[in-house]
Amino acid sequence: MDERIEISILLDFYGSMLTDKQRDIMNLYYNEDFSLAEISEHTNTSRQAIYDLIKRCNKILVQYENKLKLMEKFNKIKLSKEIILDRLKEIDKSCSDINVSKNINEIVNEINNL
Amino acid sequence: MDERIEISILLDFYGSMLTDKQRDIMNLYYNEDFSLAEISEHTNTSRQAIYDLIKRCNKILVQYENKLKLMEKFNKIKLSKEIILDRLKEIDKSCSDINVSKNINEIVNEINNL
Repeated sequence: MDERIEISILLDFYGSMLTDKQRDIMNLYYNEDFSLAEISEHTNTSRQAIYDLIKRCNKILVQYENKLKLMEKFNKIKLSKEIILDRLKEIDKSCSDINVSKNINEIVNEINNL
Repeated sequence: MDERIEISILLDFYGSMLTDKQRDIMNLYYNEDFSLAEISEHTNTSRQAIYDLIKRCNKILVQYENKLKLMEKFNKIKLSKEIILDRLKEIDKSCSDINVSKNINEIVNEINNL
């Protein structure tokens, strides 16, 4: 996976573990596509300090993932959801009972909210 | 929820974020039901130091849960799994097609592995 995309996803999972300032700067860099110079101007902080903060936060986010594996677990759940939705379509094709359709819809709702 | 049970569950989710020593002592206290005195003797550390470590780790685990809410999310998924398994039983009752049964079994496997 592209490193920028990976860090952006890790930010979704572990952003709450960073300080507000760290999260804001990481968000500007990885999600809003600001350059180091723009963030430096925007936050009135030196370009070097921004660079150091981003490197440090990258390391923190990767360490969290190595320990808690939330992205890995999320990807596993995503794959299971796809398999389940696919199997539900097969059931829907094989069976036209109105109660079955109702139950399938309820399962789809639960799956989509997982 | 009983505080001891809650901390034991939080240890499952966030134990990897503690140091080996912290995790060992928390495990002895919350999962193996050792007393402070027994842990003190077992680890050759003062009772007060053990008490302080446990208090500090409790606070750390609760802080992680406040930020990442893994226990809350796990309980939500658990409830969804129960609803889905219940609806699958209903489908199984309404439809005796062999392909439907096969697909239901595959979904149950996926659900149980979530």
